[in-house]
Amino acid sequence: MISETMKPFVEGGSAIRAMFEEGKRMAKERGAENVFDFSIGNPGLKPPQEVYDAIDEINHNLDPLYVHGYPSNAGYESTRTVVADNLNERAGGDYFDIDHIIMNCGAAYGVNMILRCITNPGDKMAVFAPYFVEYGNWAGNWGVDTIVVPANEDLDFDPDAEALRKMLVPEVKAVLINNPNNPTGKIYTREALNAVADVLREAEEKFGHTIYLICDEPYRELVYDGSEVPFPGSYYDDSLIVYSWSKSLSMPGDRIGYVAVPKCAEGHKELADALIIAGRILGGTNGPTIQELIVERCLTSKSDIDYYKKNAHDLYEIVTGAGFKCIYPQGAFYMWIKSPVPDEFEFVKAAKEEGILITPGSGFDGPGWARAAFCGKNDMIHRSKESWYKVGRKFGLID
Amino acid sequence: MISETMKPFVEGGSAIRAMFEEGKRMAKERGAENVFDFSIGNPGLKPPQEVYDAIDEINHNLDPLYVHGYPSNAGYESTRTVVADNLNERAGGDYFDIDHIIMNCGAAYGVNMILRCITNPGDKMAVFAPYFVEYGNWAGNWGVDTIVVPANEDLDFDPDAEALRKMLVPEVKAVLINNPNNPTGKIYTREALNAVADVLREAEEKFGHTIYLICDEPYRELVYDGSEVPFPGSYYDDSLIVYSWSKSLSMPGDRIGYVAVPKCAEGHKELADALIIAGRILGGTNGPTIQELIVERCLTSKSDIDYYKKNAHDLYEIVTGAGFKCIYPQGAFYMWIKSPVPDEFEFVKAAKEEGILITPGSGFDGPGWARAAFCGKNDMIHRSKESWYKVGRKFGLID
Repeated sequence: MISETMKPFVEGGSAIRAMFEEGKRMAKERGAENVFDFSIGNPGLKPPQEVYDAIDEINHNLDPLYVHGYPSNAGYESTRTVVADNLNERAGGDYFDIDHIIMNCGAAYGVNMILRCITNPGDKMAVFAPYFVEYGNWAGNWGVDTIVVPANEDLDFDPDAEALRKMLVPEVKAVLINNPNNPTGKIYTREALNAVADVLREAEEKFGHTIYLICDEPYRELVYDGSEVPFPGSYYDDSLIVYSWSKSLSMPGDRIGYVAVPKCAEGHKELADALIIAGRILGGTNGPTIQELIVERCLTSKSDIDYYKKNAHDLYEIVTGAGFKCIYPQGAFYMWIKSPVPDEFEFVKAAKEEGILITPGSGFDGPGWARAAFCGKNDMIHRSKESWYKVGRKFGLID
Repeated sequence: MISETMKPFVEGGSAIRAMFEEGKRMAKERGAENVFDFSIGNPGLKPPQEVYDAIDEINHNLDPLYVHGYPSNAGYESTRTVVADNLNERAGGDYFDIDHIIMNCGAAYGVNMILRCITNPGDKMAVFAPYFVEYGNWAGNWGVDTIVVPANEDLDFDPDAEALRKMLVPEVKAVLINNPNNPTGKIYTREALNAVADVLREAEEKFGHTIYLICDEPYRELVYDGSEVPFPGSYYDDSLIVYSWSKSLSMPGDRIGYVAVPKCAEGHKELADALIIAGRILGGTNGPTIQELIVERCLTSKSDIDYYKKNAHDLYEIVTGAGFKCIYPQGAFYMWIKSPVPDEFEFVKAAKEEGILITPGSGFDGPGWARAAFCGKNDMIHRSKESWYKVGRKFGLID
């Protein structure tokens, strides 16, 4: 009774989630203290204090009919106003009015809303490997195939604009990028993004239709060592931003985010209106109201970056000390580790035997590598050291 | 740049929402006290006290990583356990384990999840007029056409099983009903539901595939005068329940609900697993966590039914006193009013001129009638009396 269009998704499941469930099972078997779970991006930090204060204020000082009733389908005007102002300040220009901000239940939902509005079945969406595995599923909801531009290690995992150029076909209506990147922890360079923008402008001209660059930016605020994430509108007009507070406020269970359509994007007004309708008819409608009112009050708050930075540093020391090669993260909370053998499933299996849960790169179309999420507790990272060294020794990387 | 598959939805907009926005405009123009807005189901009641207490407990006494982190994709086990227990008690049998409950961001999202799982583009879904206008949009997301079984006034707006029988074709994979009904305020009789079930069983046999009866039950607890809503599994095995706490706890902005798959439904295990994946890849994933934890604590709480009952009574007195014929609501918070002229838009327009906002029945495929939502404040109902009488006089219904 499961439809043909759903079956592949049921069979595919999620490698990350499977590892997460496996971790829960292992914790029961060998004791939670002997399992080092680097599989899922579930923040080990609690939200900043401002979030708790906001909840108290919302629960006790605001009109309940306002808090729990229907806002406009796009969300509260007050929330969208501060989001628009904040984005304009960030962008250094007048890119957004409140009509350009559509609140919703997170970035995944936001990408679905966009694809609902701009694609027909048979269209295509391009992504750069390695990429968050769900992207293909979100496109698949709409009968949209994903074109995967291969990862380029020579470019240090920056998006490969030349490879994109060769793979673009008229059916491509969108390119989806994730910056800072999950799973590599890399921030794409402005040069690489400019090159991608050049290719897209050329293709728009050639094919005679708009190609939107969907910028999935949940990790935008989680950057280290003074790195910065370029504002998409500064390098490509037809860009759309999807955002979630899951990471910046450590509240992924709360399902709160937005889509922002900058004024420089083709048909911005018409598209923003369509997005409001898509948000409604897909059933999420506005983002959950308590959470909208929380983020309105906590827009300049964020999780303790230094916590993740220290985790990045400490895990890097341990993993490289155990003989592995990996990318030092500039943002997000993922470390991209090169498998010591071509088949990274062998590496992941060996790690699991020592209680370390990491995700095979093939799940991100990045075979030969694996991802370690370091958003958990710092002491788990330190306790995992001996296990990492055992794995390193198993592959003859260290004595 | 809006896709062909999205354009009809953008053009369609929402009649209810349009009226809602019109109401805000009119309130600015002539003063809020001179606008009587019966257009939208935005509860005029605040949530019961238990909701506020639950929020305090969640914010101050629970582990923040538990409250704001990712639960399982289907939602918290603790929440699903109490929901399953509550449904079993209600149904008087062992219909649900926790694996049969998938938490999500509301009933609209739930129907989308189900259609994502059981339909292919080109399939059809049947509904009984009059019905909530969004149903067609939810089906349209998945390339599924809606077959509308006409309203039957002779059956007192019960679903017309015989008419359904004649309209069923092999492409129909689902029938969607709403009980208690929006917009009529009617609770379908057990006899009518049994007749529908007979027709569906016959069609399953004839066409050789499952036809799910999707039961949209957000108003299940809002029933008056001892009326009861039959548990779907008691009359049809292949039934699925979608629920939202929007109405029973007066928190429609909070986006919290579930899909429940009873064990009597064909392929219940496989379908429940697929629904979890659909919930995830459509982007809503679990229901928002604060809200999951609220409803877990408030499962036996509900809004003040007597408030709505009084509203129903008072509005009925006024509207019939002004000469209109209408259905006395057994549940939900809508009154279904017969237009005094064949074209109900004329009636709706005349009402608007007196400051009364009601929704044309055509928006529900119920032409010749109009819907008045009476979930607002009681004093607004009383203040609207003179205006209703003016409209009645305009159509010559009273002197």
